[in-house]
Amino acid sequence: MQVITLLTDFGSRDWFVGAMKGVIAAIAPDARVIDLTHEIPPGDVRAGAFTLRAAAPCFPSGAIHMVVVDPGVGSDRRALAIRTAAGIFLGPDNGVLAWAVSASGAAPVEVRHLANRTWWRCDPPSRTFHGRDIFAPAAAHLAAGAPFAGAGPIAEKWQQLPWPEVVRQERGCAGEVVYVDRFGNAITNLPTDVLPSGVDHAAVRIHAGSSRDVPWRECYAAVPVGSTVAVAGSSGLIEVAINGGDAARTLGLRVGSPVSVAW
Amino acid sequence: MQVITLLTDFGSRDWFVGAMKGVIAAIAPDARVIDLTHEIPPGDVRAGAFTLRAAAPCFPSGAIHMVVVDPGVGSDRRALAIRTAAGIFLGPDNGVLAWAVSASGAAPVEVRHLANRTWWRCDPPSRTFHGRDIFAPAAAHLAAGAPFAGAGPIAEKWQQLPWPEVVRQERGCAGEVVYVDRFGNAITNLPTDVLPSGVDHAAVRIHAGSSRDVPWRECYAAVPVGSTVAVAGSSGLIEVAINGGDAARTLGLRVGSPVSVAW
Amino acid sequence: MQVITLLTDFGSRDWFVGAMKGVIAAIAPDARVIDLTHEIPPGDVRAGAFTLRAAAPCFPSGAIHMVVVDPGVGSDRRALAIRTAAGIFLGPDNGVLAWAVSASGAAPVEVRHLANRTWWRCDPPSRTFHGRDIFAPAAAHLAAGAPFAGAGPIAEKWQQLPWPEVVRQERGCAGEVVYVDRFGNAITNLPTDVLPSGVDHAAVRIHAGSSRDVPWRECYAAVPVGSTVAVAGSSGLIEVAINGGDAARTLGLRVGSPVSVAW
Repeated sequence: MQVITLLTDFGSRDWFVGAMKGVIAAIAPDARVIDLTHEIPPGDVRAGAFTLRAAAPCFPSGAIHMVVVDPGVGSDRRALAIRTAAGIFLGPDNGVLAWAVSASGAAPVEVRHLANRTWWRCDPPSRTFHGRDIFAPAAAHLAAGAPFAGAGPIAEKWQQLPWPEVVRQERGCAGEVVYVDRFGNAITNLPTDVLPSGVDHAAVRIHAGSSRDVPWRECYAAVPVGSTVAVAGSSGLIEVAINGGDAARTLGLRVGSPVSVAW
Repeated sequence: MQVITLLTDFGSRDWFVGAMKGVIAAIAPDARVIDLTHEIPPGDVRAGAFTLRAAAPCFPSGAIHMVVVDPGVGSDRRALAIRTAAGIFLGPDNGVLAWAVSASGAAPVEVRHLANRTWWRCDPPSRTFHGRDIFAPAAAHLAAGAPFAGAGPIAEKWQQLPWPEVVRQERGCAGEVVYVDRFGNAITNLPTDVLPSGVDHAAVRIHAGSSRDVPWRECYAAVPVGSTVAVAGSSGLIEVAINGGDAARTLGLRVGSPVSVAW
Repeated sequence: MQVITLLTDFGSRDWFVGAMKGVIAAIAPDARVIDLTHEIPPGDVRAGAFTLRAAAPCFPSGAIHMVVVDPGVGSDRRALAIRTAAGIFLGPDNGVLAWAVSASGAAPVEVRHLANRTWWRCDPPSRTFHGRDIFAPAAAHLAAGAPFAGAGPIAEKWQQLPWPEVVRQERGCAGEVVYVDRFGNAITNLPTDVLPSGVDHAAVRIHAGSSRDVPWRECYAAVPVGSTVAVAGSSGLIEVAINGGDAARTLGLRVGSPVSVAW
């Protein structure tokens, strides 16, 4: 049973996702198709990249992850297939695959351009819907057992996406918000193992948005409802939350907002 | 083919649901995963409980229903597995499973705590995402054939959730709104068989919000577009609607608003 | 592997879609159920009809397409099953199936009313949820191999839905917006092959809403970010867009707004 995951900014109110699943069903009827999300803000490559980085490690190795966050659709940007030990990643060459590939910890085994016209749904493909005409059939052919080398020629170069750097200080470190989830939790680029040995969580204070004094606790419910708290998030990054509330809105945090930890 | 249903307040814009499906796919690749909804308002245990009560009876017996509406995640609240004649229900011990279990009409056969660490995705599990680390792998192990007794020790007590009482009166009865659906239909706790024998629907008037005179008809379209109507809802409860409109908004109804029937 | 697609206005925040999938899983456990969308605006038959027309051609022939956009549920409107060379279409007899059936290019082979009570989930069915009680079990019985003739008696007449006419002019043509997608792209009824031979796209100007001068280009990215552009859409219809923006909102376009092409 081959797994194909879908991650797009297509939303769920039109037929775009259904059309791609129809294309897959016609080529690889036995593949299991799993939606990661289709609610990436239109064209937000960083949000797509973060979401893929968070979700992909939960899947069995060999899964095929197809991403269409593609503001350049129809232009001369190229389409990529990246094979790693963790699985296969398909998407436009705009950096949206980069964080998941680098977080998987293994260098890509093979990177190709999706230029095999015999795999496309139609030739020429539409100029506005490569998800349906190029990416979905590629995922389906791979799921149905086609060799990876059939995707197209080797890609010598591909687009990276720099992960925001953590600045180490004498008694702390500084980073930023990289994602805000639907609960308003602000996920940072600060790894949860940032503390030097010997420093206890309880002694730490975090500065995020309008609060200079966010305590680090073990879970949301460790503080009263309505109180601000930082926790070790489930993706290995520090996140700033309000128990039962919306931290991003309350503290004025958005992607790129500085967050610092002092001990 | 084992069915696993998912019901959460995770929303659909982040990777949370996809991550759980990845965990399930790795353990029980043949299980069929069906979303009930992921749009329960954050932390709204009653909305989750009502939704599960409405949906679960449509599924084949033996289905595994996994619910994560869990404002206490990471605290010392426990995780439950409840086996009944209708299927298996997994969720936090906060009452979210209670209405579906009691509506199934059969007492639970067996109730256990999900405390088998060998089933968890990682030990210790994250403190913020038990859906991924505890509930999803438990559902998958059960779907893959693991014995129910393997879930963990017997739970002697578990959290109930009182169903709002219907007050019987001499020529009527009084209840309240228990759920408002996306169309603005206000579903009450009043059962559709509330009328004494000999009383006809046509003679009944219903008082709901700003209207004292809602007629009871057989379907929405039995009144003109824009008119208020009460109907026997599909879950066996009286609901207040506007044909082609939003009754909750127009009449000022929300969960807990009183609704009474007079004959 | 039999495919069943679902297209409704039920939204994703209640249990309605999950309940239908439970009914299908009980009757046809091996069927593959694929959501087209459930976000059709409540009761918007034209939006449902357009969505089905756009998505259905991507599916393998023989797929079962089930549509519930049904403002007349519970009234005396009838329920249809239409068999064509492309597949089977199930839905209320209100025109919602019409555009997909006519776009498939083949006349219906057989049209029946879903009046076989032994297929229904319960008799009488609820008056408010035929998706669960009539359409879903019909789709599942057909997916499980029941003969099409078992659906019910032949339907001699059924509801059409006129496709808005394109008005040909001497040096142009006039049409209208038929759908606005989540990106704000305004899809028209003007076919992409509307230009006479010898007329180049580059020489064309399109009048849509507040702009009299929309250029026709090959893709969104062919104009600067923020600029208006018309492209050949992926369903064979001209669409008006803004690269990286929301054309419908910016230009004041909605379904029915006139759009004309001059050359």
